[in-house]
Amino acid sequence: MKRYEHGGNHSPDIIYDFSVNIAPLGMPEGVKRALAENIDKFSAYPDPECRELVGKLSEAENIPAENIVCGNGAADLIYRLVHAVKPRRALLISPTFSEYEKALTETGCEIVFHELHEEDNFAVTERILDNISEEISMLFLCSPNNPTGAVIKPPLMDKIYEECRRKDILLVIDECFMGFVCGGGEYSFKPKAGAIVLKAFTKLYAMAGLRLGYVLCGDISLAERLRETGQCWSVSVPAQLAGEAALSEKGYVSETVRLVRMEREYLTCSLENMGFTVYPSEANFILFRSALPLDRLLLEEGIAVRSCENFRGLDGTYFRTAVRTHEENAALIRAIGNIIARTQKE
Amino acid sequence: MKRYEHGGNHSPDIIYDFSVNIAPLGMPEGVKRALAENIDKFSAYPDPECRELVGKLSEAENIPAENIVCGNGAADLIYRLVHAVKPRRALLISPTFSEYEKALTETGCEIVFHELHEEDNFAVTERILDNISEEISMLFLCSPNNPTGAVIKPPLMDKIYEECRRKDILLVIDECFMGFVCGGGEYSFKPKAGAIVLKAFTKLYAMAGLRLGYVLCGDISLAERLRETGQCWSVSVPAQLAGEAALSEKGYVSETVRLVRMEREYLTCSLENMGFTVYPSEANFILFRSALPLDRLLLEEGIAVRSCENFRGLDGTYFRTAVRTHEENAALIRAIGNIIARTQKE
Repeated sequence: MKRYEHGGNHSPDIIYDFSVNIAPLGMPEGVKRALAENIDKFSAYPDPECRELVGKLSEAENIPAENIVCGNGAADLIYRLVHAVKPRRALLISPTFSEYEKALTETGCEIVFHELHEEDNFAVTERILDNISEEISMLFLCSPNNPTGAVIKPPLMDKIYEECRRKDILLVIDECFMGFVCGGGEYSFKPKAGAIVLKAFTKLYAMAGLRLGYVLCGDISLAERLRETGQCWSVSVPAQLAGEAALSEKGYVSETVRLVRMEREYLTCSLENMGFTVYPSEANFILFRSALPLDRLLLEEGIAVRSCENFRGLDGTYFRTAVRTHEENAALIRAIGNIIARTQKE
Repeated sequence: MKRYEHGGNHSPDIIYDFSVNIAPLGMPEGVKRALAENIDKFSAYPDPECRELVGKLSEAENIPAENIVCGNGAADLIYRLVHAVKPRRALLISPTFSEYEKALTETGCEIVFHELHEEDNFAVTERILDNISEEISMLFLCSPNNPTGAVIKPPLMDKIYEECRRKDILLVIDECFMGFVCGGGEYSFKPKAGAIVLKAFTKLYAMAGLRLGYVLCGDISLAERLRETGQCWSVSVPAQLAGEAALSEKGYVSETVRLVRMEREYLTCSLENMGFTVYPSEANFILFRSALPLDRLLLEEGIAVRSCENFRGLDGTYFRTAVRTHEENAALIRAIGNIIARTQKE
């Protein structure tokens, strides 16, 4: 069971899976077509440099190709980054995505946690600046943060970056969910010296099974070191081809952002109306709190949500649900409503 | 250029690529079909446990599922293994596949080299037993060895294993090319306590672009540790589906083995007839020696072979060529013949 710690339930009994944060519209047709038409190309070794894909990313991100490194999903890049840098002591926020801690622990790095507070809606505030000390050599931030959906906005992010620069701390900003944020382009951090931005195709283009992420490195030397760390063929041919095709899908992203924004409001209102505490999210998932063991009760209805019990800083009263299509979201709300009605009767 | 150190040339000018050791018949039709029919499944996160695939591998290899771990190509597993074990000092043969050294260096492991001798045709002999000392904690062997194609046969392999057992050394046997060996089933090492066998779909089923390898661990505890090392989604959905389909392709493997054996003899004879020293290989590639800069001269004809200049223990006079279909092999021999004729005229 350990391997399902991130959500994602592979049981055939699941009808609706809200436990993983994948784009609600499914994989773009153009991506499917590019895969179907190129199966013969899956025989040869992938291009280690991902040159075609990196060229297109360079244009889309408006950043030179030398600063871009692709990986077998964003998770692969987290591990490679930690193996390349081998930090002595790192600062993490909590709660956040657990792979930073896991990767750092693998290399024997000491970890300091900056706890986010419930009364701040688990948002990162200026309070974090006090924890950015000279003993730290690496800081992982996640914006929007998983599992809260809270974005760290430019004025604060700039202050954090300046503090890291002053103290020679490598700042890693995981923006894997920024593509879902309305106006996310303005909140996105432009990579500078001493900073790295991590992004993924996985979630935004619903291609989690293909594994594709990338980093924008402020420093070319670190990008080069990252390329040299681990195997050279980590990004498969289908992932590279799918990524290239996805970058042509402009309409898909704006439609996804619009849908996610509307449906997030629908879910938030509905959950609040049912009496749950819902934390403000700008991403394609929502953190909320319930005294009921909702994950287990929903599973009986064939619906998977993510218990946040194994998130450091949270407990089994917190749940994360993905924002999906209206039909799916309505089914979730209906199922929760039924559970509440049943509980009240008992 | 660093990223092409293993061969595999992505230039559009290459007509014949003998620099990578991929099966000559191309990807089996059944694998292509399984991919084409399941593109919709690439949206969801892959099953971290690869349960369907591992179940089929367990049957095919006749070994319990708990002892099997899949990876993003065999190379991914080499890195994860080294990160999981963190050996202090490791023994490697030379020449051999360079990723063992690269992975070990990444974790700061000290490496001792056992040099194979040209007069032994670079085969591993009993001489290696003297190098298996108590200071070593891990030994990587490659059988058939890359780039020589020499197999370490059971009597010697058993002696090596016993020596490793006695001295508590983890023995890793890379059998990625064993599937191409006629009678390879008999030479294949059955995993026991303290030993790991590494295998790949990549080469045998011509699916290098999909990235799929696996290990058979003698110890369940090490298999578990390996699963926990690195990201949990390293094996993509297409890789898992392709692997499952490939395991149904029994005829494909025996046809490949037959073709490779015949064509290896054709290439060996032809190269020897042209005066080259050819080292005995049982794999789908051949190591040979030439005073001519054959890699550069062949590239002018649109043919890529692998210079062995960057193999520790070899130099620029050694070349490795894959064994491919007769038409391709004949084109290679013709091109080399023309180069020799031209050189003799000058």
